[in-house]
Amino acid sequence: MSIFAHPPSSLNPGPMVRPAARALDADASALIEAFGRVRAQTLALVLGLTAEDCAMQSMPDASPAKWHLAHTTWFFEVFALERFEKNFTPYHAGFRVLFNSYYNGVGDKHLRAERGLVSRPGLTTILEYRRNVETRIHALFADSAARTPAENAELAEIITLGFEHEQQHQELLLTDLKHLFSRNPLAPSYRQGWPLVAQTYASREWLPISGGLVAIGADAEGFAFDNERPRHPVFVAPFEIASTPVTCGDVLAFIDDDGYRRPELWLSLGWDTVKREGWQAPLYWQRDRDATGTGWRMFTLRGLADVGADVPAAHLSYFEAEAIARWSGARLPTEFEWELAASDQPIEGNFLENRVFHPIALSSLPAPGEPAQLFGDVWEWTQSAYLPYPGYRIAEGAIGEYNGKFMSQQMVLRGGSCATPRQHLRTSYRNFFPPEARWQFSGARLARDVVR
Amino acid sequence: MSIFAHPPSSLNPGPMVRPAARALDADASALIEAFGRVRAQTLALVLGLTAEDCAMQSMPDASPAKWHLAHTTWFFEVFALERFEKNFTPYHAGFRVLFNSYYNGVGDKHLRAERGLVSRPGLTTILEYRRNVETRIHALFADSAARTPAENAELAEIITLGFEHEQQHQELLLTDLKHLFSRNPLAPSYRQGWPLVAQTYASREWLPISGGLVAIGADAEGFAFDNERPRHPVFVAPFEIASTPVTCGDVLAFIDDDGYRRPELWLSLGWDTVKREGWQAPLYWQRDRDATGTGWRMFTLRGLADVGADVPAAHLSYFEAEAIARWSGARLPTEFEWELAASDQPIEGNFLENRVFHPIALSSLPAPGEPAQLFGDVWEWTQSAYLPYPGYRIAEGAIGEYNGKFMSQQMVLRGGSCATPRQHLRTSYRNFFPPEARWQFSGARLARDVVR
Amino acid sequence: MSIFAHPPSSLNPGPMVRPAARALDADASALIEAFGRVRAQTLALVLGLTAEDCAMQSMPDASPAKWHLAHTTWFFEVFALERFEKNFTPYHAGFRVLFNSYYNGVGDKHLRAERGLVSRPGLTTILEYRRNVETRIHALFADSAARTPAENAELAEIITLGFEHEQQHQELLLTDLKHLFSRNPLAPSYRQGWPLVAQTYASREWLPISGGLVAIGADAEGFAFDNERPRHPVFVAPFEIASTPVTCGDVLAFIDDDGYRRPELWLSLGWDTVKREGWQAPLYWQRDRDATGTGWRMFTLRGLADVGADVPAAHLSYFEAEAIARWSGARLPTEFEWELAASDQPIEGNFLENRVFHPIALSSLPAPGEPAQLFGDVWEWTQSAYLPYPGYRIAEGAIGEYNGKFMSQQMVLRGGSCATPRQHLRTSYRNFFPPEARWQFSGARLARDVVR
Amino acid sequence: MSIFAHPPSSLNPGPMVRPAARALDADASALIEAFGRVRAQTLALVLGLTAEDCAMQSMPDASPAKWHLAHTTWFFEVFALERFEKNFTPYHAGFRVLFNSYYNGVGDKHLRAERGLVSRPGLTTILEYRRNVETRIHALFADSAARTPAENAELAEIITLGFEHEQQHQELLLTDLKHLFSRNPLAPSYRQGWPLVAQTYASREWLPISGGLVAIGADAEGFAFDNERPRHPVFVAPFEIASTPVTCGDVLAFIDDDGYRRPELWLSLGWDTVKREGWQAPLYWQRDRDATGTGWRMFTLRGLADVGADVPAAHLSYFEAEAIARWSGARLPTEFEWELAASDQPIEGNFLENRVFHPIALSSLPAPGEPAQLFGDVWEWTQSAYLPYPGYRIAEGAIGEYNGKFMSQQMVLRGGSCATPRQHLRTSYRNFFPPEARWQFSGARLARDVVR
Repeated sequence: MSIFAHPPSSLNPGPMVRPAARALDADASALIEAFGRVRAQTLALVLGLTAEDCAMQSMPDASPAKWHLAHTTWFFEVFALERFEKNFTPYHAGFRVLFNSYYNGVGDKHLRAERGLVSRPGLTTILEYRRNVETRIHALFADSAARTPAENAELAEIITLGFEHEQQHQELLLTDLKHLFSRNPLAPSYRQGWPLVAQTYASREWLPISGGLVAIGADAEGFAFDNERPRHPVFVAPFEIASTPVTCGDVLAFIDDDGYRRPELWLSLGWDTVKREGWQAPLYWQRDRDATGTGWRMFTLRGLADVGADVPAAHLSYFEAEAIARWSGARLPTEFEWELAASDQPIEGNFLENRVFHPIALSSLPAPGEPAQLFGDVWEWTQSAYLPYPGYRIAEGAIGEYNGKFMSQQMVLRGGSCATPRQHLRTSYRNFFPPEARWQFSGARLARDVVR
Repeated sequence: MSIFAHPPSSLNPGPMVRPAARALDADASALIEAFGRVRAQTLALVLGLTAEDCAMQSMPDASPAKWHLAHTTWFFEVFALERFEKNFTPYHAGFRVLFNSYYNGVGDKHLRAERGLVSRPGLTTILEYRRNVETRIHALFADSAARTPAENAELAEIITLGFEHEQQHQELLLTDLKHLFSRNPLAPSYRQGWPLVAQTYASREWLPISGGLVAIGADAEGFAFDNERPRHPVFVAPFEIASTPVTCGDVLAFIDDDGYRRPELWLSLGWDTVKREGWQAPLYWQRDRDATGTGWRMFTLRGLADVGADVPAAHLSYFEAEAIARWSGARLPTEFEWELAASDQPIEGNFLENRVFHPIALSSLPAPGEPAQLFGDVWEWTQSAYLPYPGYRIAEGAIGEYNGKFMSQQMVLRGGSCATPRQHLRTSYRNFFPPEARWQFSGARLARDVVR
Repeated sequence: MSIFAHPPSSLNPGPMVRPAARALDADASALIEAFGRVRAQTLALVLGLTAEDCAMQSMPDASPAKWHLAHTTWFFEVFALERFEKNFTPYHAGFRVLFNSYYNGVGDKHLRAERGLVSRPGLTTILEYRRNVETRIHALFADSAARTPAENAELAEIITLGFEHEQQHQELLLTDLKHLFSRNPLAPSYRQGWPLVAQTYASREWLPISGGLVAIGADAEGFAFDNERPRHPVFVAPFEIASTPVTCGDVLAFIDDDGYRRPELWLSLGWDTVKREGWQAPLYWQRDRDATGTGWRMFTLRGLADVGADVPAAHLSYFEAEAIARWSGARLPTEFEWELAASDQPIEGNFLENRVFHPIALSSLPAPGEPAQLFGDVWEWTQSAYLPYPGYRIAEGAIGEYNGKFMSQQMVLRGGSCATPRQHLRTSYRNFFPPEARWQFSGARLARDVVR
Repeated sequence: MSIFAHPPSSLNPGPMVRPAARALDADASALIEAFGRVRAQTLALVLGLTAEDCAMQSMPDASPAKWHLAHTTWFFEVFALERFEKNFTPYHAGFRVLFNSYYNGVGDKHLRAERGLVSRPGLTTILEYRRNVETRIHALFADSAARTPAENAELAEIITLGFEHEQQHQELLLTDLKHLFSRNPLAPSYRQGWPLVAQTYASREWLPISGGLVAIGADAEGFAFDNERPRHPVFVAPFEIASTPVTCGDVLAFIDDDGYRRPELWLSLGWDTVKREGWQAPLYWQRDRDATGTGWRMFTLRGLADVGADVPAAHLSYFEAEAIARWSGARLPTEFEWELAASDQPIEGNFLENRVFHPIALSSLPAPGEPAQLFGDVWEWTQSAYLPYPGYRIAEGAIGEYNGKFMSQQMVLRGGSCATPRQHLRTSYRNFFPPEARWQFSGARLARDVVR
């Protein structure tokens, strides 16, 4: 039985349905390699952080880095070791509750909002916990002869799910850390150095897409989360999509045109939020003297930086993305339009592996007629509500307890960000957050109807 | 210029797009008749209410009956008289602000949550205000020769919009009054008498619908709100829909099966709401000894009544509707499925004109293979988020300020209720409320996939 | 058994201890006369109000006028009729709960915050309820021969307590109505006419009081609430007290000196409140052009009026009174200092019976060396917390459930206001409210230490 | 100029008035010794804590241990070094804001509620900051010849104030840490070992005190906070005081007698708090099987422990203390009664220096007629509101900004606790907290009137 557990308002939730059967008995080496690589990648992310950096929680939606380190390990302990290890003994009796995210079937859970009040176990212990569980997982790998082929297939499925899950938490670890550092008046940097690269930029084009009855979603082969399935027909009218995402320059123009003060540009709930929260710019922007005269600087994982006009805008809520689109005389694409536009594009871009940790402007011009930066840099809000695909079915057993339970009051984002591991992404990947969420690397790309 | 103004989280919002041109110069009699009929219908609803009944507001989402009486009159004064009356003088200078609902273009608005703190003007004055404006509207009707044909067409459009708007407020007046009376420990009745009719009931059938690429939405002829347009193709997979709505008997079974205590049956936000609000049954149900042994009674506009097993369940939130569907091994239909299933059905049922003011069980069996109670009795939650149809465009001018501004975080309901005027409804009509709203006559009908 | 019931944060609570024994058998005529006069005085206060005016509740701390009319009647029904009437039958079975304020011993209570949601019974019914209970009380008076002398004494005690209680609600009825009317954008007037009188004003003097070991509190004779007892010695150091209260002119000077923007003038909690509530002036003041150039007008029971410099300032919180005192280089008196200063003064001034319903400036100069306006006009905040006097004892029985239960987190006010019935007041009378309360006619008088 | 800065709702605030002039030129050795001892005592308290333990904040009222370490150092840097050091350069430019508690005169302050979001500077840096400032203070000591006698006296005053201030934070460091550890499901221990000592207990006696006109407060000699002055006469009636504090056994009896479920035992606000917070026992008590059959265990700085019947009860709110007193047929003493009862007692007891960190039962019987445990173990709530003594005057200059600013809505506690440094306490010492606060070592002692 495989289980996928993750934070409520966050990256893609569902357990996989029919994953690629990377069976241990046939060729386990790819699986073992991937497991090792993802685990090492997580550790690399906390390099240079102090125990105090890893322990704090700056808001209920975010978790301490230490918790991410532990929870992704808990996942392997509870779902792989507990299931397959002979004479299983937990590493620590209290961890089962302490590092459970939201899975009622596993039992009690520690209060989400109090994850930052757990000074003990300390970071050192959690790192030891990681090593301990990894060693025992490797022992399972080595012992494949003791299991039936079906059991080995099940184990492969759980391990695959485990590292896909861990990759999601890699992104969250970064966005949560960024939020924490942003609350420190001394504005610490996670990584040094800015600007990152010399930059050029293409002018924006409107790219026509002809639409029609098209297939949307992941097909039955390979790993995908269940919310990407089943692949199904959707009728899409002809539309145009912008070749590049909304940039900081666009946002500056929106601000200068009083965008944050004009109710007619906003959804009613969006306007309520603007007033209640006092929004005047995207999250992490602050009024400041800067080198380029914009009057704004922004907090990044590399410290405070100027707002580069050509840099894709990040940390927008859906409400802001929608208002900027309306102000532009355009709209956001549906997730179907987005997937259609992306369907023949390579999955390339500024991902986690770049180690830039911020969206960047293009370094070379895209080919005319081609979209740029669909993948990486920023997640792109769509105007689609996060709802089940037609024919989506609730899985049997414990998985079924959670399938789709988050399909309410959230909007779909597509394309991955500068904090998403490259291997984690698919064209059909559906990320989702509530419309007011801003602490992810969330941006926008415009679309518009074909005027007939 | 025509404007449609109504409460934020409520019945259908948009101004009409290309309404039926009931031009005054051609044949104004139908228009005049409809105006008079709707206005009289509103007055009939407050018959028997005291000035105190009409003055109170029981929650921010609801408004006093007096406010509904005034606001629907304000609509005609501001948009028809102010535009067309020679030497226009407002009935009262303060009313422009006091009875503006949410239209920023008209100027300031009185605080929505404080509508129940306005003891003066009293009911008598408001009734006089209604008569005054009606008299002046009739004077406009009589004076059509003073206007150009285009102006007469514009006036006809505004009058039409005005009474469509007033019909929406008729329903709200009833649901708001019900909520108010329910807060009174003495449980007053709006109308006397229960049970209403002798009742029988059909067993529920699953009706197959073949689906395909179908046209959804209102076509260009006749009056419709802009959110029903444009008519557009949608691909619908084959599905089955229940012949009858979810009944109180179904809800009782859900309760008896611990439905309100099992998180696995609920969306995550739904379960949060159940716990936070302490929900144990639909709104207005209370634990009580009753004649039929259910252990529950319910507050109705006819006082406290037994819970009839065959009566369509009302006052369900989307969360409850969705949970009951999941518990039933089914799901809610999309709004497209609903519209497809209803497309060849007559718009008949238990509407406002019945003067029952509560859903009732069928009094005769439906024909085999035919759906029953699609229209009237209860609005039926769909699993579709309230979003713009493809090609929906923001209107020019003041209307555009509000078009679609409520298309966020709400779910679509279809079919009208026992508080909806019959003439107000269309098959393409989209009502919408947030998923936790329960004070409308909101219920559910189940659907399911065709297992392939 | 005598009971005193009243709203939690309001006028003096306690039941009387050993009231003047106005025994029915000896000379009942004074008692009967007082009963009739107080009941009539209440009715006179609602003259000219509509049913809607009397039905609404503008905040949880306030109650509808209709509720005050009913609750003061409920008091006589529950504590006098239920105790002494033969074959007692309640006027309405539901009223026992509906009009209970906070007395757990009597049983359930209707939710305080929902008193404004009870449209039925209407005002007409409540007035009939009043007449009915009065008639039955008079029947008790007539039937004194049927009771023992002890029973007659007990009845006299209850009747006395009942009309003292009703007088407190007379003041609350006015302050609650004022708050309601202030929320109406049309700013209705309770009574017409302003300014009220031609005015003159004395310059303020500092009056020396020598202090010493003095007796504070009510002595054992006559009616007094238990919180005024026992009379006890308090050592008071020499001090000076201002001859006149803080005026609107003082408040204007405080505002002009940025008083509402300087944290150093405020108690820490006061400053938090200023910021949270956005206070910039006393309650009911609004920025407006006025005839005298102050830039402020104020809402009164006689409509909007200019802010007269010589008028005692009302609707100050304790925090504002304390800040104004600090800014003046003075302080508030203790309640002991206040009582000492007032001990040889006649209880004269601008009380409810004046029918002015607002503080007014003096119409003639006080004698030199004499304090003015100690009584009437505005309640004066003291710097004494509302705590039991030494030797205060919890009464036996049902009364004891409530004695002193409000002696926490409130400050004492002294002297009565323009909404207090003259006969209700005593020099030892202790009123009390939380330090942030402003909707009473609450003002201040300064004191200072004798510099040695 | 001397400044005293401390958390809003906490230990004694005011700057000293005329402290003991421990002038540097005369005999500086005592001052230097005291400075070194207090600083070392603070460091000893964090021995054994991890960086993570020291970084977290479990509620807005509490602060991280690291913050206490830094703020007490900031105090010396800002008020001593900045004033007297030649060529003063701050240790870190950002610390002036980051470690300012609430002193507006010094400039901006970091948000109190976000003290737990500052991972950098880390503990190591803060310990270095402490050493750096100490070294520079010692350099000031050594350089007394460079200053005038008046300057040396001023420096001595500041240093004295600084370590008195630091002692207050020693207590807060412990109570804040206890609260943090209590939120950790693994229930870590600060120190090991329980029970602490073999215990015996005296039966409780009522000790008569004759009262009269007595002098209260600190006299003009020696160090005291300004809220303890001036010494002034108060008339105290004869009363009796309990020889021992309220114990856990008393609380258990109160619980068993349904004390937490009977509104008649509570102040009205207290009962509101009981219901809102769901209180069923003192803070840190949890229902559990224990060795002695009470059904309760309690979280302590030494881990979970049985509830010893003879141990003084801690972590009571004022509301609980008052309710337990009422239930006992007694009351709390006033702060004047308490001071009178303690006036001839030695300041001995279970203080911080004991390193027990929890109240303990007596180890030997007190002499008959003598009170026990007046000092140490638990702070004792009095029924006196925290208000200025008569003649209390606002100081000149920056001090004056804050004198008395917390004298509102708090109650006085007396006697010190197991977390109070012995040298810090005086008989006249007034501690104060809001009536709902429970995270201090706050308990109670009963008093009663002499029945005449």
